[in-house]
Amino acid sequence: MRILGVDPGTRYTGYGVIDVVSGKPTHVCHGVISTQAKADLWVRIHQIHKEIVNVVEETSPDELSIEKCFVSKNVSSALKLGHTRGAIIVGCMSAGLKVHEYAPTEIKSAVTGYGRADKDQVAQMVQAILGLPKRPASDAADALAAAICHTHGYKMRQHLMRAR
Amino acid sequence: MRILGVDPGTRYTGYGVIDVVSGKPTHVCHGVISTQAKADLWVRIHQIHKEIVNVVEETSPDELSIEKCFVSKNVSSALKLGHTRGAIIVGCMSAGLKVHEYAPTEIKSAVTGYGRADKDQVAQMVQAILGLPKRPASDAADALAAAICHTHGYKMRQHLMRAR
Repeated sequence: MRILGVDPGTRYTGYGVIDVVSGKPTHVCHGVISTQAKADLWVRIHQIHKEIVNVVEETSPDELSIEKCFVSKNVSSALKLGHTRGAIIVGCMSAGLKVHEYAPTEIKSAVTGYGRADKDQVAQMVQAILGLPKRPASDAADALAAAICHTHGYKMRQHLMRAR
Repeated sequence: MRILGVDPGTRYTGYGVIDVVSGKPTHVCHGVISTQAKADLWVRIHQIHKEIVNVVEETSPDELSIEKCFVSKNVSSALKLGHTRGAIIVGCMSAGLKVHEYAPTEIKSAVTGYGRADKDQVAQMVQAILGLPKRPASDAADALAAAICHTHGYKMRQHLMRAR
């Protein structure tokens, strides 16, 4: 199974693709989409949409693992983040990907064992788990962490299905 | 010029297409996309995205006129509405439509002359302006009103360009 992890943000959207080979996550690629802060919101979400669709076309993942929204943000931030997530999700769904959401604490726990780990700890563990030569940029690390988190959920579901 | 007006909503999204012929708005089609309240948000926004893309493919509008977000809603509503607007906007932009936003008060003023008109007054005026045999459903009427509102902005811009 190939998983696309996304850490959505209107300014910076991280993405990371991993394969699950014999239950072990293996790195495929990662990157960060950055948009112009001064551009209209619709221009920015269209850019993010197009770049995510490109990643999907180039890497053909089966499933999307995306960070759940924070609900503590203000209305204006929530609207922006909603637009960005909507643009990403419909791009992935149109390409046939299944969507899975995980809370930030679940993602952090999955890679560091601690739901309140900081960004550095997440990036460090992502680098170690995937055996990357260089530490990925923070947004890409969060995206790879979302993908890794889904392999935990995936393994758990497989386990439960076998137990039935 | 052909304009697609959209009144975005996660439960009901209204759309309406009009032509501007000699400065006069002429009705092409309208409708309401409704989604299952119990379905996952991503399923609902993907449905709205697909149906709007279908309308665009069938009617080939040049521009999108969409209602601006209310900023007074709570964070959870803002997130949902953001997802819905994002899904609609990227669908239209991918088809080459230009995006224009209008505040609800601008749209109401454009069709009724009064920024605080109620839904019935908007639907009644939309019916009269477009010469429709039947009053359109409220969400479709709001979408047609957004499209009509853009013809006012369009006429104003044309006027300003001629004056230069």
